[in-house]
Amino acid sequence: MSGTLYGLGVGPGDPDLITLKAYGILQRVPVVAYPAPEEGDSLARAIAAPHLPGNQTEIAIRTPMVPGAFPANDVYDAYSIEIAAHLDAGRDVAVLCEGDPFLYGSFMYVFARFVGERRVQVIPGVSSIVACAAAAGAPLVSRNQVLTVVPATLDAGDLEQRIASSAATAVMKVGRHVSKVRDVLARLGRTEDAWYVEHASMDSERVLPLADFADEQAPYFSMILVRQSEGETGC
Amino acid sequence: MSGTLYGLGVGPGDPDLITLKAYGILQRVPVVAYPAPEEGDSLARAIAAPHLPGNQTEIAIRTPMVPGAFPANDVYDAYSIEIAAHLDAGRDVAVLCEGDPFLYGSFMYVFARFVGERRVQVIPGVSSIVACAAAAGAPLVSRNQVLTVVPATLDAGDLEQRIASSAATAVMKVGRHVSKVRDVLARLGRTEDAWYVEHASMDSERVLPLADFADEQAPYFSMILVRQSEGETGC
Repeated sequence: MSGTLYGLGVGPGDPDLITLKAYGILQRVPVVAYPAPEEGDSLARAIAAPHLPGNQTEIAIRTPMVPGAFPANDVYDAYSIEIAAHLDAGRDVAVLCEGDPFLYGSFMYVFARFVGERRVQVIPGVSSIVACAAAAGAPLVSRNQVLTVVPATLDAGDLEQRIASSAATAVMKVGRHVSKVRDVLARLGRTEDAWYVEHASMDSERVLPLADFADEQAPYFSMILVRQSEGETGC
Repeated sequence: MSGTLYGLGVGPGDPDLITLKAYGILQRVPVVAYPAPEEGDSLARAIAAPHLPGNQTEIAIRTPMVPGAFPANDVYDAYSIEIAAHLDAGRDVAVLCEGDPFLYGSFMYVFARFVGERRVQVIPGVSSIVACAAAAGAPLVSRNQVLTVVPATLDAGDLEQRIASSAATAVMKVGRHVSKVRDVLARLGRTEDAWYVEHASMDSERVLPLADFADEQAPYFSMILVRQSEGETGC
């Protein structure tokens, strides 16, 4: 019998923010795979590390991690052959995914190669969006409000329009786009409504009002949350 | 020493989709509170039930749960006095929240009454959005795509504009608005890109292409996910 491919959300960074379900699967699968840079450690594996029993076959899916660039198809084709061989031998394979597998995760590239062909199960995880909101103590949306999740790579005009028309906006992948986002918020008069959050839920977590964050560059795993000011949330 | 108030995300429905962190807190807090209808059971408590040690003080925060209506402030004021008394006595209180506390949760009403006044910690949870996507096997967004989360209560024109301008849209709280959403998607020619998901991750979970869902009414805890068609996702 063929094995099951799991897309396993391991949560935003704190190893304790993994679900009981993902934890249970990690204990019993013989093979774990995870995205990794061409050299160096995998963040997804680091998050799951305390929960790994230590006797598993590991597959590091190494791709160039260049902000704004996306891996070539043939990289995933090669890893998919390796994963398929384990499934064919009846071994379950868990692909570890930072946050949730279906929210900006590279798991989609693996998923696209197996969906409809093999047994695939996705275990949802705590996303970085809600982890950032928790870190900032910033409720996102309530009642009939709209939340928009945008990559910071959008052009300034598009960003401005989307932030202006949403009760809350999560701007992902801030990186080198921090000045653009800052300028957009200043133009909207919304700087005071914005939080800067870096590495949410990790030991290296940093949370500050965007007005207090003056750097021109931010890490890739940083986010800017924009919310309606307190008086408007209706709480 | 005053107790800590926890906003505890218990996840979308499957009790195993609670985090290790929330589980650990549930084991040790002397007081749990949870939203509940005026009569009958609390969904948040039902999700957490297998994990409750059974010796805790419980506070059911009972409010009228009428779709589209929101509870009066004085209801939360009264419960907050009860919660504050426990905190003053040095007892930690965990408020159980379906999904994530800061995404459309009634925890915000409690949070607003304690933030800045007491020690408050929010434990993020798996949201119904990612649970619905996992149930449908439907990747939401990748690369530089935009995700919009909207309540189905928006008027048809607003819904149409937001769905048209997003790579993926999660339409929450479908309930009696299902026909409106269906009409909007038909006008956009996007019916084939939409999934209907009810009670994601629960035993009563139902997932089907929206085109196969003909009812005029849906439960409150249902969602319609709209995504770009397969050819456009770039996977």
